[in-house]
Amino acid sequence: MSEDTRIPRDKENDYSDEWATNRRDFIKAKTGADLKHIGKYSIDPTVLPGNVENFIGTIQMPVGVAGPLRINGEDAKGEFYIPLATTEGTLVASYSRGMRVINECGGVKTTVVEQYMQRAPAFLFDDARDARKFGHWVKDNIEDIRKAAESTTSVGKLIHIQQWSVAKTLYLRFNFTTGDAAGQNMVGKATLMACEWIKRAYPGSRYLLSGNMDTDKKHSHLNMLHTRGKRVIAEIVIKKEVLAAIMKVDTRNLAKATVLANTGAMMAGAAYNGPHSANGIASIFIATGQDEANVVESHAGLLSAELLDNDDFYMAVTLPSLIVATYGGGTGLPTQRECLEMMDCYGTGKANKFAEIVAATVLAGDISLGCAVIAGDWVSSHDQMGRNRT
Amino acid sequence: MSEDTRIPRDKENDYSDEWATNRRDFIKAKTGADLKHIGKYSIDPTVLPGNVENFIGTIQMPVGVAGPLRINGEDAKGEFYIPLATTEGTLVASYSRGMRVINECGGVKTTVVEQYMQRAPAFLFDDARDARKFGHWVKDNIEDIRKAAESTTSVGKLIHIQQWSVAKTLYLRFNFTTGDAAGQNMVGKATLMACEWIKRAYPGSRYLLSGNMDTDKKHSHLNMLHTRGKRVIAEIVIKKEVLAAIMKVDTRNLAKATVLANTGAMMAGAAYNGPHSANGIASIFIATGQDEANVVESHAGLLSAELLDNDDFYMAVTLPSLIVATYGGGTGLPTQRECLEMMDCYGTGKANKFAEIVAATVLAGDISLGCAVIAGDWVSSHDQMGRNRT
Amino acid sequence: MSEDTRIPRDKENDYSDEWATNRRDFIKAKTGADLKHIGKYSIDPTVLPGNVENFIGTIQMPVGVAGPLRINGEDAKGEFYIPLATTEGTLVASYSRGMRVINECGGVKTTVVEQYMQRAPAFLFDDARDARKFGHWVKDNIEDIRKAAESTTSVGKLIHIQQWSVAKTLYLRFNFTTGDAAGQNMVGKATLMACEWIKRAYPGSRYLLSGNMDTDKKHSHLNMLHTRGKRVIAEIVIKKEVLAAIMKVDTRNLAKATVLANTGAMMAGAAYNGPHSANGIASIFIATGQDEANVVESHAGLLSAELLDNDDFYMAVTLPSLIVATYGGGTGLPTQRECLEMMDCYGTGKANKFAEIVAATVLAGDISLGCAVIAGDWVSSHDQMGRNRT
Amino acid sequence: MSEDTRIPRDKENDYSDEWATNRRDFIKAKTGADLKHIGKYSIDPTVLPGNVENFIGTIQMPVGVAGPLRINGEDAKGEFYIPLATTEGTLVASYSRGMRVINECGGVKTTVVEQYMQRAPAFLFDDARDARKFGHWVKDNIEDIRKAAESTTSVGKLIHIQQWSVAKTLYLRFNFTTGDAAGQNMVGKATLMACEWIKRAYPGSRYLLSGNMDTDKKHSHLNMLHTRGKRVIAEIVIKKEVLAAIMKVDTRNLAKATVLANTGAMMAGAAYNGPHSANGIASIFIATGQDEANVVESHAGLLSAELLDNDDFYMAVTLPSLIVATYGGGTGLPTQRECLEMMDCYGTGKANKFAEIVAATVLAGDISLGCAVIAGDWVSSHDQMGRNRT
Repeated sequence: MSEDTRIPRDKENDYSDEWATNRRDFIKAKTGADLKHIGKYSIDPTVLPGNVENFIGTIQMPVGVAGPLRINGEDAKGEFYIPLATTEGTLVASYSRGMRVINECGGVKTTVVEQYMQRAPAFLFDDARDARKFGHWVKDNIEDIRKAAESTTSVGKLIHIQQWSVAKTLYLRFNFTTGDAAGQNMVGKATLMACEWIKRAYPGSRYLLSGNMDTDKKHSHLNMLHTRGKRVIAEIVIKKEVLAAIMKVDTRNLAKATVLANTGAMMAGAAYNGPHSANGIASIFIATGQDEANVVESHAGLLSAELLDNDDFYMAVTLPSLIVATYGGGTGLPTQRECLEMMDCYGTGKANKFAEIVAATVLAGDISLGCAVIAGDWVSSHDQMGRNRT
Repeated sequence: MSEDTRIPRDKENDYSDEWATNRRDFIKAKTGADLKHIGKYSIDPTVLPGNVENFIGTIQMPVGVAGPLRINGEDAKGEFYIPLATTEGTLVASYSRGMRVINECGGVKTTVVEQYMQRAPAFLFDDARDARKFGHWVKDNIEDIRKAAESTTSVGKLIHIQQWSVAKTLYLRFNFTTGDAAGQNMVGKATLMACEWIKRAYPGSRYLLSGNMDTDKKHSHLNMLHTRGKRVIAEIVIKKEVLAAIMKVDTRNLAKATVLANTGAMMAGAAYNGPHSANGIASIFIATGQDEANVVESHAGLLSAELLDNDDFYMAVTLPSLIVATYGGGTGLPTQRECLEMMDCYGTGKANKFAEIVAATVLAGDISLGCAVIAGDWVSSHDQMGRNRT
Repeated sequence: MSEDTRIPRDKENDYSDEWATNRRDFIKAKTGADLKHIGKYSIDPTVLPGNVENFIGTIQMPVGVAGPLRINGEDAKGEFYIPLATTEGTLVASYSRGMRVINECGGVKTTVVEQYMQRAPAFLFDDARDARKFGHWVKDNIEDIRKAAESTTSVGKLIHIQQWSVAKTLYLRFNFTTGDAAGQNMVGKATLMACEWIKRAYPGSRYLLSGNMDTDKKHSHLNMLHTRGKRVIAEIVIKKEVLAAIMKVDTRNLAKATVLANTGAMMAGAAYNGPHSANGIASIFIATGQDEANVVESHAGLLSAELLDNDDFYMAVTLPSLIVATYGGGTGLPTQRECLEMMDCYGTGKANKFAEIVAATVLAGDISLGCAVIAGDWVSSHDQMGRNRT
Repeated sequence: MSEDTRIPRDKENDYSDEWATNRRDFIKAKTGADLKHIGKYSIDPTVLPGNVENFIGTIQMPVGVAGPLRINGEDAKGEFYIPLATTEGTLVASYSRGMRVINECGGVKTTVVEQYMQRAPAFLFDDARDARKFGHWVKDNIEDIRKAAESTTSVGKLIHIQQWSVAKTLYLRFNFTTGDAAGQNMVGKATLMACEWIKRAYPGSRYLLSGNMDTDKKHSHLNMLHTRGKRVIAEIVIKKEVLAAIMKVDTRNLAKATVLANTGAMMAGAAYNGPHSANGIASIFIATGQDEANVVESHAGLLSAELLDNDDFYMAVTLPSLIVATYGGGTGLPTQRECLEMMDCYGTGKANKFAEIVAATVLAGDISLGCAVIAGDWVSSHDQMGRNRT
């Protein structure tokens, strides 16, 4: 390839307005595209190392604010305004409507039940027996392995190592707690150190640092079962009258629609059985500088519903693998940090609080869209119409 | 709730700097957070209706440019520079490295093989026989149903309707082509019109507009099988020498690692068996104003690999449900549009081209990360080291 | 291997008591096991060609009879006695109890909604575009392909061919109706003939007769979606009083338990969300000479439940891939045929009737076990106990 | 229902020829079916309590013997003759052919790596926090829970309890070892006892004995990950020359076909990626008195393959949830016991040995059918034909 197609970079001063401009000029020369809006950023490029390479400017993603959302969490307590970065019209309005329902019912209760981050190397042996023998050795030497892993981090703690044998391979899955960071890099580094220690301590061991049992940057049934990130639950009892007043939907109809949706989700083999966890998660993630690709792991979950004897309606969203951080990554970028700050979620000690807010927001969105589908579309014979619309 | 917690809005002039400022002030008053960076946007708020509500400003998401990437597509032909909006360090660098491999091997071949967008109502009957009878009626009346559906759109075409019986419910899945729009709203509106026509034409029919068989805003095995968006394939034959020179990896080792990764993915029940489709897709989606939540459907796929007789390495990524648009939604926002324009992908007639570019980018990223895992971490006994490292 | 370890066979007269005895003697000589009971069969070995090789005798599997079971099907009408071959104590008793519930509620309604049998070859090309081009050709030449396929069978009809592109491979899935046979061999032969015709008609085409998209002899999500065998639904409205009287369970508690079980099944990624479809299916399959391995495809399904306004309880089992035959295979063996005959299900024109009976039986078993779990184990606080037990 | 439709039973002497005859006569009177062959059993009905109710006779399922099969297991060592109860022609012949390949290559290596049997109750609370609190209590009180559980069994050992939170429910999964029994009833009883102890010890706890996370009598992804029964691996290196001589297939072609099959299985969402584990498992299970419904859990697995540098071919089958017993259930019935005895697998201390034999048999069948698909059907252009057929 001739030199002149290469994107210009500077070894010393690359994170600068000058070199961003140089690259925009280069792109314009090569493609004809005038990147004038992309160049109209207000952030200081010197904060960007560790967040991006070949910086040319910024996308301006509109942010709408939804709320307030009353949360009765363990870490998130009170009313919150939720920043949603989106280009999808009605999204903010829809989530806001669900939040109104929640508030009128006294708020949403949120609970973080578990948290882990993983790296899952695959160890290769000559046969299944050697792999099994190694597995026993790993159990027996967990303390030394832990010491090696934790030598790379002051935050990460190796909690346990899962094992799976397939043919002559032993897949290990190192489970860490990672404080308020998402922790993928932290646990990657720690696991590498542990594997290198193992390689020296266990003659003949060979490994691949990831055998896709992490599973990183993709949804998996494994992540549905075994928390990657945080397992968070948001619950509410929706009062029949509130739903009727705000959403124009009867709780009995919502209960029936829920059954249809569950069946469809099961038949489809869906990662989530509610209406649209991904919308809220993606919007908050972008607003707050989360790793945007983690939406794929985070959107999986279970929406639970129960029509109570008094026709109130219990709803709960369980997100088994919600991956969030309140420091590190993109959380410190100026606009993203402001979004975290408006929920008082920036910095250490805030990750559980933030996870609770995300789960509560997902629940709001699912109440809203779940009802919208019914109110507009649940069409019945004339007589039944009366019952459907309170 | 007392009035003063409500986010201020203006019925007439809400999409304005003034009201964005009012809301930022309100948030500051309520939460103490100073949203000064969020307020430093350059875009004109009057373009935002249809993209966001309760606008308070913008997230500035850094964009790095990767490339050039040589694509031998049907619509995408030549060298492209790829805008990646991300806050994850090394992402742009990693994709760039994969693109170098691709370029040195003559480019990536891309093919769009199918495209559909769906809305899937559930029709309820008194028993399974009535549901089945209705299913036959739907087949017999497809032309009228099509006419009703297509009356709401000049672009969308109803191609076929899939049917699934469960208990006394018949799930229908309306499959449309939607031109260069992603088309979720288009097909939602068209399907609603069709359902309303059906309700009148078929006495006793009741329906819920979505029974979660769409499946919208979540990954599903159904979407793995039946294209939602575009089914796109990107292929390359990687030369052994190129991989060794750029990535320091032998194709035979890459082949072995691929098998381990496939097995891990199968055991994990993963939506994708390659390293990280979601990273590239999320970054391009945000850069170009795609619906950011659609990453969850779009990241699913199959990474295929074959060690050829001459030790070159065939790789292909198949994305069955890549949901992209080149007009509508967020594509017309100033910075997002510029990102599309730098690939000459803005506007009508460009969606397939853009889909090809996304798939090619995913392949680049998977070559790069797949090799990185090996080069750094594929550790073997001393003798084997020589063979592993070319 | 030395000759004397080879199992004795006779080219001319192998299906005979003599050679069965020779082989039992051989086994005894080799292993010390005295196979005297296995040799006490009453069937005539000359009927066995096409069912088994190296015949040494028979397993005597106990058969219990359950019923009567009142079925209001389209083909199965009236009261049926169900033969269940099993070695699991309580199975017959448990299914019988569920049948009592069904009978007291007026019987079960059964409906066959769809039926197909498949063979799914994979066609290989040089790249994805060639594969796509071939796919179009297949659509254009469906009539000739059908003619070739159907030339091998007077019963099988090729209804449609599904297509999936992955990398440079096109997976085709030939869907046939097969009359009253299960039809795996029938469609295998027909598909082979069609593929051979294609190979000649489409230069450069290469194929593998099965690329695991059939999917034969294993459960798959694909089979959950696309009928392999028959898609059958069995429905009932269980009266609150009947359930209380026979099962000692309140329908409201059954409704709550169902929700828990559905959630567990979703989280587990289970092929069936009810208690134990496989028990009934395996037992009837063995009793009636079905291909015993097809239990794995056949047991998948969805158990639907709805608490009605009057506290009666609607239940339905949907089996999407129930593979049954009423002639061919093992159905004609003496004892197996008798089991079919006691349900008047032997021979042509009976397959749908038999499928209805199997689905009705599964429903009976799930009512019974579903209630047993509750009656014995659903433990609640003292106050609630009163309500739980009617 | 009038009395005369009820199947005749005798409280005192029901397991007798007399009452079997009475029931056959009853069935004949009701249905017209003459059950003369079913009545020609040789077993003594007095052995049947605990295996069947309403006994009317036996199915005579033909048994063919395959082998010898050379196994280099830890418990199974030497050459084995395998009893296969089947009505599917070619099955015995096909497995036999695969065994020949295995023997010529020196035998199959088998390894049992893990074993558990589960019962998984669901505990209900008022909210997610109460469920979480209970989960901590369970961990803290594991010793007492174990004591309660193990009080019901001298064989079963409670190894660990897994936990999953969903909404306000905590699913527990009790993992036991069960000696040489399959153990479903053993662990059901033990878990019930443990739950009753918990109910008394933990005020306010309510439970359902199974919340479908066991998962019993159905395939699940959970069982793919977490051993239910035994996790067994069977491995072999197939010599290129042997495969060519016996199967007429080149190992390189087998390697290519394997990739196609894996891709198809992944796309289909299949429980097994090889050709037909269920055939061998079902046939041995019926022959040896295993619970025939457990085929659905047992057939899941992973078939691994690797083309070695010398063109020999490593293959391994990993069965994560093979449920087998060598005493209890149907294993003691006369013909079934003889089948176990011909492998020296009857009684205590034999379950691992038997599991190894089953896995080895599955591998034989997959070698055979995998090659059959290629030899007959892998069709290529004229030039390539020569290479394909050795």
